[in-house]
Amino acid sequence: MDRANTLQIFGLDGIPEVRSGDDVAQLIVDAIRTSELGLLDQDVVVVTHKVVSKAEGRLVNLSEVEPSAFARRLAAITQRDPRHYEVVLRESARIVRMDRGIIISETRQGFVCANAGVDASNVDGIEVLCLQPLDPDASARRLREGLRELLGVDVGVIITDSFGRPWRNGVINVAIGLDGLAPFADYRGQQDPSGYELRASVLAVADELASAAELVMGKLARRPVAIIRGFQSEGTLGTARDLVMDPTRDLFR
Amino acid sequence: MDRANTLQIFGLDGIPEVRSGDDVAQLIVDAIRTSELGLLDQDVVVVTHKVVSKAEGRLVNLSEVEPSAFARRLAAITQRDPRHYEVVLRESARIVRMDRGIIISETRQGFVCANAGVDASNVDGIEVLCLQPLDPDASARRLREGLRELLGVDVGVIITDSFGRPWRNGVINVAIGLDGLAPFADYRGQQDPSGYELRASVLAVADELASAAELVMGKLARRPVAIIRGFQSEGTLGTARDLVMDPTRDLFR
Repeated sequence: MDRANTLQIFGLDGIPEVRSGDDVAQLIVDAIRTSELGLLDQDVVVVTHKVVSKAEGRLVNLSEVEPSAFARRLAAITQRDPRHYEVVLRESARIVRMDRGIIISETRQGFVCANAGVDASNVDGIEVLCLQPLDPDASARRLREGLRELLGVDVGVIITDSFGRPWRNGVINVAIGLDGLAPFADYRGQQDPSGYELRASVLAVADELASAAELVMGKLARRPVAIIRGFQSEGTLGTARDLVMDPTRDLFR
Repeated sequence: MDRANTLQIFGLDGIPEVRSGDDVAQLIVDAIRTSELGLLDQDVVVVTHKVVSKAEGRLVNLSEVEPSAFARRLAAITQRDPRHYEVVLRESARIVRMDRGIIISETRQGFVCANAGVDASNVDGIEVLCLQPLDPDASARRLREGLRELLGVDVGVIITDSFGRPWRNGVINVAIGLDGLAPFADYRGQQDPSGYELRASVLAVADELASAAELVMGKLARRPVAIIRGFQSEGTLGTARDLVMDPTRDLFR
């Protein structure tokens, strides 16, 4: 059994500015109802974490942050806001690299990324910082259940963030929350058409779906949700936490 | 100006086993003619590097490799084939990490990846190693010109490889060769719908397109080519070499 050979990816227009306490499933359903897309079983709904974080109130008002001495020292080097560094440090479980004002850290959720996933944003003209959801896999699970209750469909859900990478310029979208999908397509032990066994062939399809969705999202249009249609998830269901490499296997801890 | 909100991705069936000296553009055109897809201006044609490498004769017959003392020592630790290590070392410009038999190196092309991008494969039952194209950007350029000559269309071309990443399990498809496309979507200095300036927003869309294409390729079906329709490339044209981070900016050299 192998993949389907056609995918469609739709960017969903009509999601309003999200506020703390909003029901993201309901906002998506409202937007789908005003589009002609519908939502089908096995569709994959991909959502930028920023929308989820805002709905969950994962925002920090910069004016309420008291920077530590360490945050102040970092800021003195880079001429940036010490309160921003303070929040990055609070969201970090461990610093992986720190140089030239850049912090690559492991977040409390276990992901390694720049600035502990803390984004500058604003709400009603007030400067705030947007944090990753506390448990993005749980957020994905709730969103999937919400869509099932509201529309009676069984979809996969991916919550994304955009991460930089060592050695390559630019950021790409990856999965930080997941439900109803297999995060990997595992071809180990299977044979390619020449009869050669496929080695080292565990594909992180959840991350590839996250990246694919970003292509229709657009940062300027308010289009934080995409629907991927035609993808057949196979293999063991899992979470985005499964994408985090075990420290004992990781050469770049 | 922002992105289109719908993409289609087609996996192209009908590409035969590729041999040294084959014209990849002609093979793709033949497969397109037996499909109902056609090829349109602004389509992005995404091709697994293995097909390009084979056509360019970038294969090494394992039986003709004489391993060095260093390759033999590595193989003694891991019980693997010393000739494989020898070829990985020959394709490496610099070793970034080496531990437990795993080699992460910078290839002669400048990409950092496991095993210098050397894949085990076979041709007519003989065990061979498949190397990355010598100059994947040039390969992409030739393929794009070939498609223009044969079909009169102006497409973007991406040549991909699947790379592992630090901190995350599984491999994802990335661009190692590129022509006729902007590798990045650069939102710096622009404002989001809340009027907030987008910082750190240089998206590596070439890598996201590479990952999206992988979702329809399948490793078991012989489907090494995908066509992405509906993507509007904007910004400065470039090459996959532009995706390689400058050493002075890289915290993980």
